[in-house]
Amino acid sequence: MTRLLLLGAGRSAASLLHYLLRYAPTEGWFLTIADVNPAHLAPVLAAHSEYARAVPFDVQQEDRLEGLVEQADIVISMLPASFHPRVAAACVQHRRHLATASYATDEIRRFHADAVEAGLTILMECGLDPGLDHMSAMKALKEIRAKGGKLTSFKSYCGGLLAPDSEGGNPWKYKFTWNPRNVVLAGQSTAKFLEAGRLRFIPYQQIFARHETLEVPGYGAFEGYANRDSLSYRAPYGLDDIPTMLRGTLRRPGYCAAWHALVKLGLTDDTVQLGNSSGLPWRELVAAYLPRVPDDFDIAAHLAACLGLDPEGEEMRRLTWLGLFSDKPVGHANATPAQLLERLLAEKWQLEPHDHDMIVMQHLFEYELDGEEYTRTASLIVLGEDATHTAMAKTVGLPLGMAVRRLVRGEVTQRGVVIPTHADLYEPILAELEQDYQITFVEEEGPSTRNALAD
Amino acid sequence: MTRLLLLGAGRSAASLLHYLLRYAPTEGWFLTIADVNPAHLAPVLAAHSEYARAVPFDVQQEDRLEGLVEQADIVISMLPASFHPRVAAACVQHRRHLATASYATDEIRRFHADAVEAGLTILMECGLDPGLDHMSAMKALKEIRAKGGKLTSFKSYCGGLLAPDSEGGNPWKYKFTWNPRNVVLAGQSTAKFLEAGRLRFIPYQQIFARHETLEVPGYGAFEGYANRDSLSYRAPYGLDDIPTMLRGTLRRPGYCAAWHALVKLGLTDDTVQLGNSSGLPWRELVAAYLPRVPDDFDIAAHLAACLGLDPEGEEMRRLTWLGLFSDKPVGHANATPAQLLERLLAEKWQLEPHDHDMIVMQHLFEYELDGEEYTRTASLIVLGEDATHTAMAKTVGLPLGMAVRRLVRGEVTQRGVVIPTHADLYEPILAELEQDYQITFVEEEGPSTRNALAD
Repeated sequence: MTRLLLLGAGRSAASLLHYLLRYAPTEGWFLTIADVNPAHLAPVLAAHSEYARAVPFDVQQEDRLEGLVEQADIVISMLPASFHPRVAAACVQHRRHLATASYATDEIRRFHADAVEAGLTILMECGLDPGLDHMSAMKALKEIRAKGGKLTSFKSYCGGLLAPDSEGGNPWKYKFTWNPRNVVLAGQSTAKFLEAGRLRFIPYQQIFARHETLEVPGYGAFEGYANRDSLSYRAPYGLDDIPTMLRGTLRRPGYCAAWHALVKLGLTDDTVQLGNSSGLPWRELVAAYLPRVPDDFDIAAHLAACLGLDPEGEEMRRLTWLGLFSDKPVGHANATPAQLLERLLAEKWQLEPHDHDMIVMQHLFEYELDGEEYTRTASLIVLGEDATHTAMAKTVGLPLGMAVRRLVRGEVTQRGVVIPTHADLYEPILAELEQDYQITFVEEEGPSTRNALAD
Repeated sequence: MTRLLLLGAGRSAASLLHYLLRYAPTEGWFLTIADVNPAHLAPVLAAHSEYARAVPFDVQQEDRLEGLVEQADIVISMLPASFHPRVAAACVQHRRHLATASYATDEIRRFHADAVEAGLTILMECGLDPGLDHMSAMKALKEIRAKGGKLTSFKSYCGGLLAPDSEGGNPWKYKFTWNPRNVVLAGQSTAKFLEAGRLRFIPYQQIFARHETLEVPGYGAFEGYANRDSLSYRAPYGLDDIPTMLRGTLRRPGYCAAWHALVKLGLTDDTVQLGNSSGLPWRELVAAYLPRVPDDFDIAAHLAACLGLDPEGEEMRRLTWLGLFSDKPVGHANATPAQLLERLLAEKWQLEPHDHDMIVMQHLFEYELDGEEYTRTASLIVLGEDATHTAMAKTVGLPLGMAVRRLVRGEVTQRGVVIPTHADLYEPILAELEQDYQITFVEEEGPSTRNALAD
């Protein structure tokens, strides 16, 4: 019997937990689920008590973490990323493998040598993004290289969005399916990427103004904006000399221009406490950011004029829908604009029980072969089943669960800090996702057509 | 004999030191100067050895700080502001008065009750800005109130600039006379102020685009941009109900529009390491920030087009003069844009031995009296004498020295954490500055004319 320890089993772990429970009896696992609120797991575990139990666990209890790790053979963590250095330290100390969906940060990479020496695998970036992006990109890159193609461009976009049947009357076609704070603060460090062999930087105040349009077969158009540091992915993908490389985030068309207006206005700033009252109406907060406010004025019209927007246009429609020009109180005293905006959006962008989320991923490759230029795209759409088995929970949890299954079986041979860029890990996982869960990339190949980030 | 301890005696302390040495023999002081490099003080102290000595002191040595404070009667600190909580703690413990030119932060204010109980004065904000601004504003406010005027608007601007004879061929008419890093990062938190009874916020990316023009008699035009938090000055000035209140920074005309271009471009960002080589030419760094760079292009013309600037205009003349479009290497590997910009500016904006600096301060008051609206301005110009007795050193050091003289004489009766908003402190200091140093505000009064922050 192999003892698996799952640290953290909140909402986003539902599909992972389902997968682990599915295979526990046949693979000979005993699963201990350590969660801050184990009571909520009782209904789920009722039918699985022979090979699974839930125990209380507060991540602040260092001794408790040590004890749990010591009693396990393999540790899986869905805790917030900031706790992972501590978890990795415990795993190295007690010689346990570790698997997570979080980034292999410099802090985590410091355990590499010790993990190699102890014969351990610290498998990081094994969820959706990062995770499935690496796996699917490496598979396509391998195929292009196998036929002699020379990569000239690689762009990779991902977004957690709404299924078309849930976009409804929401002009943003967006709701929170993941950490709201991260969405509000998105892009607040200069984006770095490569374009035609040149370093390219986009400062925060321009990121949502410079996006490109993408098409996903059967699902229409999306817009993608550049993510923080695309340069650091050259080495792990073996693309050190590639002229164009960019990673980005997907939204439905119109989102970026409207969000850009919020950025320009100053409402995404998280550095300054405004000294406001909680009763300040939203319209007055917005007015406070506008220059030369006339005595008797229409705030929406004045904002449109100041930001150069069409008063009847799509951006204004989205801003108005949020309630920015309403008498609704901001509701928080002395907060940052970003905190107030997050609070407002949490109401407007809250997932309803009947809503379905949708994961969209698209890779765009360009390569040269026998003097010709080719384009290849790989597109993925995953739809949420219900409020528990969301597309986000499935695409984050299933690759992690599948990697763990192979790690237990001894089929993962890399040691140290590892991300899933090796064929012996990504090939079986991609195959299992396709066969058992219909999570499949649609691939297209043809003559090259170039896109560029627009102004 | 009264034992004075001066902590820190770098370049900016020259005028303070000169003042303390001038009065030490007649006031019966013995001055101990604790500096990290006491050797440089030997020539200055040679003629004053009976009542002054220099001792080595590294601010990291806590025991040494304790010992020095214990052996003094009054402590004066010109150390960087971040050390002042530690200095204040030592002063409270050993029951010594303290005087500095740094802000009375929340951390410092925590010593208030203990200082009151121990009968101590912790005199803060007693330099130029903060310092002389409080003193001169309070004097004018007192006079306006004395005749029954009701304040409706108070704006206060200050700038450390170049004397007209040193502005020469530098189109920015600006050089570093104070901490360069603070100049590069200026404005990076939303400005907060009051205008006609309304809260007003300006986000960083708009601060240098929204400035007003001021005239100083005999010295021409300046432009002022809003500083961080003008709201917090209402209470100390007794202006809790004033409809308009703003504090700002002065530059010569044209500076703000050109600096705004640097902000928009992204070159003042200090949050992201660029991963650049030190050999990267400035023209390529700038190009990396521009969207849709054509293959064969003129970077300056492309930048002007992207930012909507006249290619032959004043902003472009200033940017070109800095060397932004040159082949000069940025000189630092993997730095932030702000670090690279500071390095470039440190060369272009370095004070030469023959340069003179200039302090400009202007208060603009509006008030109602007998149903009429009046405007009063108080303007100060101070010119530097040489590279040692700069206008900055004089205006920071002399008010502090003068306050210390009165503190020793027992003429300062306020206890606890104090700033110079009391007449018994600011009246004699303003009189001494005028009589002995010709540091005089020019006042004008007349019918009201309103300015507003332009777009």
